[in-house]
Amino acid sequence: MRNIKLTIEYDGKRYLGWQRLGDSEKTIQGKIESVINQMTGEKIEIIGSGRTDAGTHARGQVANFKTNSEMSRNEMLAFFNRYLPGDIVVKKVEEMPERFHARYNVKGKQYSYYVWNDPIPTAFERYRSFYVPDKLDLDKMNQACERLLGKHDFIGFSALKKTKKSTTRTIEKLSIEQEGSMLRFTFVGDGFLHKMVRILMGTILAIGSGKLSLDVIDEVLENKVRAEAGETAPAQGLFLDEVHY
Amino acid sequence: MRNIKLTIEYDGKRYLGWQRLGDSEKTIQGKIESVINQMTGEKIEIIGSGRTDAGTHARGQVANFKTNSEMSRNEMLAFFNRYLPGDIVVKKVEEMPERFHARYNVKGKQYSYYVWNDPIPTAFERYRSFYVPDKLDLDKMNQACERLLGKHDFIGFSALKKTKKSTTRTIEKLSIEQEGSMLRFTFVGDGFLHKMVRILMGTILAIGSGKLSLDVIDEVLENKVRAEAGETAPAQGLFLDEVHY
Repeated sequence: MRNIKLTIEYDGKRYLGWQRLGDSEKTIQGKIESVINQMTGEKIEIIGSGRTDAGTHARGQVANFKTNSEMSRNEMLAFFNRYLPGDIVVKKVEEMPERFHARYNVKGKQYSYYVWNDPIPTAFERYRSFYVPDKLDLDKMNQACERLLGKHDFIGFSALKKTKKSTTRTIEKLSIEQEGSMLRFTFVGDGFLHKMVRILMGTILAIGSGKLSLDVIDEVLENKVRAEAGETAPAQGLFLDEVHY
Repeated sequence: MRNIKLTIEYDGKRYLGWQRLGDSEKTIQGKIESVINQMTGEKIEIIGSGRTDAGTHARGQVANFKTNSEMSRNEMLAFFNRYLPGDIVVKKVEEMPERFHARYNVKGKQYSYYVWNDPIPTAFERYRSFYVPDKLDLDKMNQACERLLGKHDFIGFSALKKTKKSTTRTIEKLSIEQEGSMLRFTFVGDGFLHKMVRILMGTILAIGSGKLSLDVIDEVLENKVRAEAGETAPAQGLFLDEVHY
């Protein structure tokens, strides 16, 4: 059987997220599986690198599936982009060794989070950013980012309950770029817990607006109490940029 | 009476264009007038710098209206952005001399037109660009732009029938910038006829893909026959960037 890897871009606005829920048509996974079914005649379940929340976007989500189809990679690419809705685009179709697994083999991911920081809102980026009209202290937010770098138990910055699995992750990069009124926060790490990027963002923004002090970072890393971190920032500002293998 | 100038950004996707049609709620002008009515209690007609087509966007449309309201400019700005739908944003509210007229006083305009030129479509920019998968010859398109510069009778590149009014316009700048797969065409001139930018774009793209020869530019400027120019490029790639006074 062939093992096919897909690199996928999607605008998450209209969807309930990546993961198929029963027969729901309103998930990215569900839409892609239904096109594969049409394309190959096979009833196939695809494996994503991980879930994305309802409203979250992706520039480079990765998934794989096994098939007996004899279509070429280019024919598959054309078929996907002909039959998928316009807000889901397959960017690349690759042939992988049989053992490749889009979730188990993940070595790391890059996410971006966008914040529109201006007294005046944005007509164009409103579903692709979080609108924060309050003044933000960039210097303090950069300090917050620096404290989060490295290897920590991030369970206090996640939506997880106690678990036997390790909740230790390493953040390799966390940077802020400003372009006009738009702030882009880039996260690179070996893995991110459920809602971790959005809770980190809520915390960094609360520090930037003065609602929380910088010390909250070390405190939550230490005491692991979710309630002491910031709110969960909305899904619409979040982009899964890349999955590293 | 006060004379108020608005600078307006909008995502045109959901609208039938700028100009109010009877009582239709589905126009930008209609939406803004209804908020002004709510804000001042006055039934006011606003004057736009010009119309934009259904689906066309604006970063800097300008309009003015006269009012007896005593609200401050900041209060108006806040009121607009609180009650307008999220895809229409008032960026600026200015106080003007009584004689200022948003249409009569226009000295020039800048438009941008975006083309997504890649074998793979775009999930994010599909309503803000025209998707052209064919290979385009940038060099030829630059030559086409150069031939269009200056003062000409552009009626053959417009949707106008014969008219007594002058159809001579001057294009001061027409440039192409490339960023990845996105091409941005920027038009600056003293005025543009009905659908002129979209017909010029259709013509430039037909030259770029080899469907028309470069000579079509001089021919249509000379013989003024609309049918010999390219097709009208779709409205969704067009942005009104700035109005100059």
